[in-house]
Amino acid sequence: MGDTFGHLFRVTTFGESHGPALGGIIDGCPPGVALSAEQIQSELDRRRPGQSRHTTPRKEGDVVELLSGVFDGRTLGTAIGLLIRNEDVDSSKYDDLKDLYRPSHADFTTEARYGVRDWRGGGRASARETAVRVAVGAVARRVLESAWPDFRCVGWVDRLGPVDAAVDPESVTTEAVDASEVRCPDVAASERMVTHLDGVRRARDTAGGVVACVARGVPPGLGDPVFDKLEAELARAMLSIPAARGFEIGSGFDGTRLTGSQHNDAFVLKGGRVGTDTNRSGGVQGGISNGEAIVTRVAFKAVATHFLPQRTVTTDGREVTFQAKGRHDPCVLPRAVPIVEAMTCLVLADHWLRLRAIASGHGSGVR
Amino acid sequence: MGDTFGHLFRVTTFGESHGPALGGIIDGCPPGVALSAEQIQSELDRRRPGQSRHTTPRKEGDVVELLSGVFDGRTLGTAIGLLIRNEDVDSSKYDDLKDLYRPSHADFTTEARYGVRDWRGGGRASARETAVRVAVGAVARRVLESAWPDFRCVGWVDRLGPVDAAVDPESVTTEAVDASEVRCPDVAASERMVTHLDGVRRARDTAGGVVACVARGVPPGLGDPVFDKLEAELARAMLSIPAARGFEIGSGFDGTRLTGSQHNDAFVLKGGRVGTDTNRSGGVQGGISNGEAIVTRVAFKAVATHFLPQRTVTTDGREVTFQAKGRHDPCVLPRAVPIVEAMTCLVLADHWLRLRAIASGHGSGVR
Amino acid sequence: MGDTFGHLFRVTTFGESHGPALGGIIDGCPPGVALSAEQIQSELDRRRPGQSRHTTPRKEGDVVELLSGVFDGRTLGTAIGLLIRNEDVDSSKYDDLKDLYRPSHADFTTEARYGVRDWRGGGRASARETAVRVAVGAVARRVLESAWPDFRCVGWVDRLGPVDAAVDPESVTTEAVDASEVRCPDVAASERMVTHLDGVRRARDTAGGVVACVARGVPPGLGDPVFDKLEAELARAMLSIPAARGFEIGSGFDGTRLTGSQHNDAFVLKGGRVGTDTNRSGGVQGGISNGEAIVTRVAFKAVATHFLPQRTVTTDGREVTFQAKGRHDPCVLPRAVPIVEAMTCLVLADHWLRLRAIASGHGSGVR
Amino acid sequence: MGDTFGHLFRVTTFGESHGPALGGIIDGCPPGVALSAEQIQSELDRRRPGQSRHTTPRKEGDVVELLSGVFDGRTLGTAIGLLIRNEDVDSSKYDDLKDLYRPSHADFTTEARYGVRDWRGGGRASARETAVRVAVGAVARRVLESAWPDFRCVGWVDRLGPVDAAVDPESVTTEAVDASEVRCPDVAASERMVTHLDGVRRARDTAGGVVACVARGVPPGLGDPVFDKLEAELARAMLSIPAARGFEIGSGFDGTRLTGSQHNDAFVLKGGRVGTDTNRSGGVQGGISNGEAIVTRVAFKAVATHFLPQRTVTTDGREVTFQAKGRHDPCVLPRAVPIVEAMTCLVLADHWLRLRAIASGHGSGVR
Repeated sequence: MGDTFGHLFRVTTFGESHGPALGGIIDGCPPGVALSAEQIQSELDRRRPGQSRHTTPRKEGDVVELLSGVFDGRTLGTAIGLLIRNEDVDSSKYDDLKDLYRPSHADFTTEARYGVRDWRGGGRASARETAVRVAVGAVARRVLESAWPDFRCVGWVDRLGPVDAAVDPESVTTEAVDASEVRCPDVAASERMVTHLDGVRRARDTAGGVVACVARGVPPGLGDPVFDKLEAELARAMLSIPAARGFEIGSGFDGTRLTGSQHNDAFVLKGGRVGTDTNRSGGVQGGISNGEAIVTRVAFKAVATHFLPQRTVTTDGREVTFQAKGRHDPCVLPRAVPIVEAMTCLVLADHWLRLRAIASGHGSGVR
Repeated sequence: MGDTFGHLFRVTTFGESHGPALGGIIDGCPPGVALSAEQIQSELDRRRPGQSRHTTPRKEGDVVELLSGVFDGRTLGTAIGLLIRNEDVDSSKYDDLKDLYRPSHADFTTEARYGVRDWRGGGRASARETAVRVAVGAVARRVLESAWPDFRCVGWVDRLGPVDAAVDPESVTTEAVDASEVRCPDVAASERMVTHLDGVRRARDTAGGVVACVARGVPPGLGDPVFDKLEAELARAMLSIPAARGFEIGSGFDGTRLTGSQHNDAFVLKGGRVGTDTNRSGGVQGGISNGEAIVTRVAFKAVATHFLPQRTVTTDGREVTFQAKGRHDPCVLPRAVPIVEAMTCLVLADHWLRLRAIASGHGSGVR
Repeated sequence: MGDTFGHLFRVTTFGESHGPALGGIIDGCPPGVALSAEQIQSELDRRRPGQSRHTTPRKEGDVVELLSGVFDGRTLGTAIGLLIRNEDVDSSKYDDLKDLYRPSHADFTTEARYGVRDWRGGGRASARETAVRVAVGAVARRVLESAWPDFRCVGWVDRLGPVDAAVDPESVTTEAVDASEVRCPDVAASERMVTHLDGVRRARDTAGGVVACVARGVPPGLGDPVFDKLEAELARAMLSIPAARGFEIGSGFDGTRLTGSQHNDAFVLKGGRVGTDTNRSGGVQGGISNGEAIVTRVAFKAVATHFLPQRTVTTDGREVTFQAKGRHDPCVLPRAVPIVEAMTCLVLADHWLRLRAIASGHGSGVR
Repeated sequence: MGDTFGHLFRVTTFGESHGPALGGIIDGCPPGVALSAEQIQSELDRRRPGQSRHTTPRKEGDVVELLSGVFDGRTLGTAIGLLIRNEDVDSSKYDDLKDLYRPSHADFTTEARYGVRDWRGGGRASARETAVRVAVGAVARRVLESAWPDFRCVGWVDRLGPVDAAVDPESVTTEAVDASEVRCPDVAASERMVTHLDGVRRARDTAGGVVACVARGVPPGLGDPVFDKLEAELARAMLSIPAARGFEIGSGFDGTRLTGSQHNDAFVLKGGRVGTDTNRSGGVQGGISNGEAIVTRVAFKAVATHFLPQRTVTTDGREVTFQAKGRHDPCVLPRAVPIVEAMTCLVLADHWLRLRAIASGHGSGVR
């Protein structure tokens, strides 16, 4: 059941890195939403490999086919099927991976779980599966945009290796993000990130970092107060992305050093509606959105495949030295931005439907 | 559906802070596991208020009743019903909370979601609901202990306000944790935490911090490789705890500054089995446990109810100053430790059953 | 997970026949619905044993406690906890059942599944669990009545042993049903049923039959077009009732003998709305309600516990003769009526929320 | 969420009748099961249209593509993606259906639910979606065959219009079923069915009937004792098939006329194992399989599209006469046989995994 995400806006995906295709189904998309394959494609293009020297040279057109659920340019309310063929599959470089476990990859654990694995390109554990996340996330984004006129979901690289950025979540735009080749809208930080990344790549090594994401224009009332708190669902969404190691909302780990009087967000009137003067809560209180910007951060470890020698163990139990070959991103952060946005939109779309199911005209202004 | 957690070891809970009772149902507990109400009670006693001057003086016996699913001292495989009566309910102090929104509490968002709220003691949003989490987590722990002889799940306070501890996850014990009145097994740090907490309480303020948790003796193979990665499920579990603001596994946020060659865990042979020489992965690779210790950290913001004046807004839209009354913990961290352990056990029990469902004698040694 | 029913209006139940209590949780009840324990109790009283000589003399007050989710007489939107204590438990008559399998009971299959069973009164497999179904169904009924002003859900005994009734689903009322001691509103048939039942009881035997149920005032649009067709969900609901062996909607099995031109329901205008002139579809077309009366029938086999000698096998593999003792209904049909109604209301409440989640003001008049 | 079926062996499907493709994903298939596209194709060929004069002349190769989840001829344990392109799509005959509601079809209810519909060939409501059911059911069948050596699942036409067959569920074979052009292994009844069907087709009308199905070689212990009783899950599965109107297990509706002493199945020893001497229970007692043959029956109403004039209503509210055109089966029964088998296999595969998750070596012989 681990290939399914969401309760009402529910996506299920499939696909190995070197198999014939990837794809997904959205079960529960509301009817009547304007949707085209081009809209999905434009999000996919942001994740596509080969956009710059910082990403893998694997050339995937990542062309999405929209197979069902849309008629006359609008969603039908029925299941939406999506397909992305794998094109530039070159499994030859993986032949010698069949018999060993790459460090900090899923080779060993996949075999421990299933007793078998597709060793070509990481199989199902490859980050290639995230293409489908971006595709289904594009549909979720369309649903939310059609429901909430002011909705914007913008992610950016907030740290790359040791380089931190300073970005205002209230005003950051996709345009500013995509203007940076590492998707960092802080221009000075972006330049330092590029310099750092060039150094890492020359050293045949890889880098990690942090992606931040803001969702603005989300109405209050989203999130279920116990196990399905909005931040809990976001945390699950983010930690399900390959290489994610941490999640924060609002003040996060740093905020734990503050006292209650330093941390609390005072309620104030904002042009007639109730708002907060600060946003250390990150837009969620008691697991439910409060109408302020939802601000999250996701930690990504450095890419596991670097090109320096590593110690490891073979499937028949010998300790050996491993030297990676093949095509790999030195840093996934820039391409992780649309993935983080996609997962954010999936969570919000699901919880918007969940709110609609129980909301009964009580004046919260959410419908 | 937000009151349900887990797919196969599935718990559903209910209960408002000042209602007649809290309770829960475990649907899917395997049969034949030795279980008594006393075992559940002993975990509950670790969470109970009134254990020291650092916790709320509310006096709750938190006596658990085991209503079904157990016969002759063993689980039947049928649903296990648990009940905890609320005893020391004093709603009078909450009367003036009816008409305003406490800052950084769930009052406003609950009303935005439901159009109605039980304003007595926070209602369903009160951290009192975590008593049931600890009770059902105790059952999960029993299931895991009966399945894995070396299983240990130990949480501790790793930071309190500005005070950080240094604890070895490979060797920390529950005894060492519970010997500290703030549940920090680093004795020197524990003393500084107590000092800090006394200062905060005298200042009528509150503190936050970080709880860390280790699960040792977990076999490899737990976790689903895409959306239900083990760390994703743990992240959701932890962020669903009231006041949680962040989650890390293994190297977490700090690890993002490392390069791939610095971060990777080399595979080595450990007495016949495959292990890693370091554990920056935190026991999970590709979303699946690898047999090493599973190490996580959860950030908790300071308790929202401090006793200094605060600005807020009334339900009829006036800006006012609010002064809290009632009984509240100055810091939830020590009591959060058994909650974090409980949520960890729930995730592991669920995924252990999920692994059993598909595992087919392939030699991973997990059955 | 088998103790949970529904996706959005989701109930989970627990309880063995001779354990301390039965209970349930409703997760997902919409907020703002007027609800009291008395309303639930009045439905429970219709199912309660000891109502006439045709039902078991076991005396259960079946007093329901409402433990959460309701405040000031209205639902909060949070989980609703319900508890029913077992009172008149007499396990002594079951002592000699410990070591054999009662024919056509769940003794053998429970042991095959779990390796263990609570042999007292049938344990979890006892029809006593249906008390909780009736309690949660009463809440679902309240939700639907508050949403749909013309909603009525009425069940009745349509066959008892060989005696068939003739009842008009468009006009039958609960008052007419409850006026019959066997809950058959066809007065002549009711008398023949009573006569038949008296004969069966004197012969120390038991009887089966058919319960029919109609839901009127249901708007069009409920049901999901593929796996969760409304009739599929109703079928699952009904076949989950102990002793149920069959389900029909509309024309059912008899209708299979008709040709398409004989069977189709012509669409006609009914005072401005689209309706059908006949209702062989039973109110559901393509898995979705069409606004006509939803008419279903459920087959119940005769009660397995009769008082004639039976051949069976012991747990240690000897063939023996078994003679039942204890307190048992000679016929469950009259008491099954509120259970069938409850399950119908649960399905409709769940699907009403599911419709609300996706419906977007398209004029179907369902919100 | 209505496009998903199953909890652990979980399938999700998509596809409109006249869209580009149909498809599905199996999430949760165990690893290590031998599986090829050919095995799936051979089941699909049994459902394919155009097999005889009794089925629609629509020519669909129904070629299935296996897109993921299989490597080196064995399942990986990861999601299995399946795709079937629509080939012989001719929407022109449906142009005049855009503006009216075909009687006893889903046109009206689809619009009531979604406010929009794909009027070409019935869209998602077309029985064409059952092609994917047969494909995923073929995988389930493979899983069960690899687990249970004696497993056989055989369906047949047990009634066609007024013609009833007499078939022994203990001995019927697929070969005998497929030797009949109407899939009725009772040779004399098969001939009368063919005669009846020819008459119906000449009268431009359509026929309904009953499909029966037996699953032999199923171990005891499958099924959850409360809401997810095995017969409840089977009932839901069957009533989700287009045109299904009723479901029975074992003695079904006719059995309700029997007394308890007539109906009960005595337990006897069968070569060392516990069995029953009769099988009125249909292989399930208390919701759990007992090791005997699981025998079910499904009622199908006559095909709604006949070629006689019918009264109906237009989308703009005028009463008109409708005359169907296009390509339609006069009777779905023969093609429904592999669908009923597929749904049976899906339920059994799901419950087998559910049993494995909780079973703990207690000697029931199910693993």
